Amino acid sequence: MHLADTGDDRHDVLGLGNAIVDIVAYAEDDLVAELELQRGGMTLIDEERSAFLYRRLGPAREVSGGSCANTIAAVASLGGRAAYIGRVRDDQLGRVFSHDIRATGVTFRNAPSPTGPATATSMIFVTPDGQRTMNTYLGACVELGPDDVDPELVAGASITYLEGYLWDRPDAKAACRKAAEICRTAGKRLALTLSDGFCVDRWRQEFRELVDERVDILFANEAEITSLYEVADFDHALQEVRRHVHFAALTRGAKGSVVVRGEEVHVIDAVPPVRLVDTTGAGDLYAAGFLRGLTMGLDLATCGRLGSACAAAIIAQYGARAEQPLLPLLRTVEAAP
Amino acid sequence: MHLADTGDDRHDVLGLGNAIVDIVAYAEDDLVAELELQRGGMTLIDEERSAFLYRRLGPAREVSGGSCANTIAAVASLGGRAAYIGRVRDDQLGRVFSHDIRATGVTFRNAPSPTGPATATSMIFVTPDGQRTMNTYLGACVELGPDDVDPELVAGASITYLEGYLWDRPDAKAACRKAAEICRTAGKRLALTLSDGFCVDRWRQEFRELVDERVDILFANEAEITSLYEVADFDHALQEVRRHVHFAALTRGAKGSVVVRGEEVHVIDAVPPVRLVDTTGAGDLYAAGFLRGLTMGLDLATCGRLGSACAAAIIAQYGARAEQPLLPLLRTVEAAP
Repeated sequence: MHLADTGDDRHDVLGLGNAIVDIVAYAEDDLVAELELQRGGMTLIDEERSAFLYRRLGPAREVSGGSCANTIAAVASLGGRAAYIGRVRDDQLGRVFSHDIRATGVTFRNAPSPTGPATATSMIFVTPDGQRTMNTYLGACVELGPDDVDPELVAGASITYLEGYLWDRPDAKAACRKAAEICRTAGKRLALTLSDGFCVDRWRQEFRELVDERVDILFANEAEITSLYEVADFDHALQEVRRHVHFAALTRGAKGSVVVRGEEVHVIDAVPPVRLVDTTGAGDLYAAGFLRGLTMGLDLATCGRLGSACAAAIIAQYGARAEQPLLPLLRTVEAAP
Repeated sequence: MHLADTGDDRHDVLGLGNAIVDIVAYAEDDLVAELELQRGGMTLIDEERSAFLYRRLGPAREVSGGSCANTIAAVASLGGRAAYIGRVRDDQLGRVFSHDIRATGVTFRNAPSPTGPATATSMIFVTPDGQRTMNTYLGACVELGPDDVDPELVAGASITYLEGYLWDRPDAKAACRKAAEICRTAGKRLALTLSDGFCVDRWRQEFRELVDERVDILFANEAEITSLYEVADFDHALQEVRRHVHFAALTRGAKGSVVVRGEEVHVIDAVPPVRLVDTTGAGDLYAAGFLRGLTMGLDLATCGRLGSACAAAIIAQYGARAEQPLLPLLRTVEAAP
C-alpha cells in the first residue's frame, strides 16, 4: 500500500476509463420511480440535471469510482502492479480521486485539468434491494484524449483494459484506439468491458468490430452480451461469443459467471455476500479478481472464483472501492477445492 | 426525508458545532504508530500537516461529519425537528456538508464563506480494532462567531446543544455563550457535550463553571468526565457529577452508559453491534438517540436505550452518518421491556 510511483513503466494491468467520484446514497424505491430514473442503468446527465437530482438525493457519501478505475484499484489491492489513465479537474473531488487511486498503489500520472468542467461525479441511488441506479455527469472526463495515452505505459503493461463507456466521447474513443494499436504492436493483450447494456445499444457495430479484430479478453454481463449480439437469452449469446471471441468472462449476477477460452468453458458459482447492501462495482470487482488471477498465472476456474469473491466483498458495502484491503481474498480462493 | 426549510423556527434540537467533512480510511496499527498519531483522540492540525498526513492515508471515503452535526443529523433521521449552526466554505466539500445535513431534514441556514480557508476536514484513521484516530484541520470553521447565531432559531428550540470542541476558538466560544444566554432568557434547555478528554484538559475551568451555572443536560464519556473533575475513576466522577449537574448522560463504550437526573440513576447496557467496524460517531449518535427520546417525552431509561441502539448502528459502518434511515430504531426500543 501507499506505493510511490517509482517511474517504472511495467505493470500487470493498465486501465483507461472515466475518472469519477461516486456520490452514493440510500434511496427509497418511490424516489427512483418519481424521478423517472433508469433503474439499474447508467444515464449520462448534464450539469443542470445533476444539480436537480442532487437536491433530491438523500444524505450521501463520496467514494472514488469510475468502472475501470474501480477495477484497477482492486487489482492493486490484490497485490497486482496496476496503472490508470483518466482525467480529473484540479478541484477538491479531483484530489480525492487522485489520492484514492494512488493510495491503493496504482500508477496514475495524468495531470489534473487546470480549466474546464469539474471532476466527474456519478450520483448513485441505492434502493433497498441493493440495486444501484447511476446518473453520471462526465465533467472533466471530456478532456480525455489520445495525448493522455503514454505509449511507454501501454507497451509496459501485460494487459490493457478499456472501458466501453469511453465510446460515448469521440476523443476518449480515439484514446482507446491509440492504446489498442500500441498494445498490438507491443504484443500485449487487450481487454474490454462492455460497461452497460445501453452503452452497447449506442455502439453495437463498433464494439462488434473491435471484439472481432482486436480484443483478447472480453468482459460483459448478461444484458450487455445479449445486446451486443441481439439475441434473446444468455445461452444464445454464449454461442455467439464462442464464434467471435477467443476469451470471454461473462457475469450473471447471483447466477455466477461463465468463462470461455477456445474450447474451454467454466461455469463459476457466485459467492453469496455476507449481506447485500449495494451492487455498485460488482462487475468491476469481478474483472479485477479475474485479471489479477490471470496475471498470476492461475487457472481459469480459479480466476473466476477470485472474481466472484471480489464481487461478493464489494456488494456487502456502499461504494465500489473496498473499505479494507482485498489481498486476504487471494488466500480464500487458493485454498478452495 | 428531504424536507425543505419551511422558515419555521421551532425545532426539538438546535446544535452549534464545527462543520466538518470526514475523510475516513482503514489503517494498519503500524501506520498510526509510525506517524505518532494520538490514538483514539482528536488532534487539531494545520494545513501543512493535513497535506502531509493525507499523502500517507489509505484510500478513503468522504462522509459529512462534525460531532454536533452528526448528532443533529441523527436526531432528524429519528424523526425529530432539528437545526444546525456552523460554517463551511463555498467549495465542493462545503456543498457536500450542506447537502448531507439538509437532505437528512435539518434546518441549516448559515451561508458558506465566499473567502478564507477551505471547508474543514478530519482525517480519520480506523485501525483493525475499530478505534478511530482523528486529525482535524478546522479550515472554514474558524469563521464561526456570534453573528452566525440566529436568536429566533435558539429561542425556538426546545434544546440547544453545544459541542465542547467549539471552546478551542474564541469566536466560536463567544457564539456558544450568546446561544446560552438566549436559551436562558427564552426558558429553554441547554445541553453540552464535553467532546474529548484533551479538549477538557484545555478548558477544564471554563467547562466546570458552565456546567455549574448554565448547562441543563451534560453529555460526557468516561475520559471526559474523569478529566473534568480530575478524579481517578468513573465512580468518583459520578459522585462529582451528582453534586454539580442536575442531569447527565455518561457513556462508557462497551460498558454502556449511566444516566443521572437528581436522585434518579439508570445504568444502561450497551447494545452489541452486528459487527464492530469504526467507532467514529458512537458518542454523537448516543446523544442523538437520547435527545430524541427526551423531546418525545420518553422515560430516561428508554432514552438511554435509544442512545445505545443508535450508537450500535453507527459503529457497524464507516463514518458517523447513518448509511440508512435511523427511524426504525425507535420501534426496537419502544418494543423493548
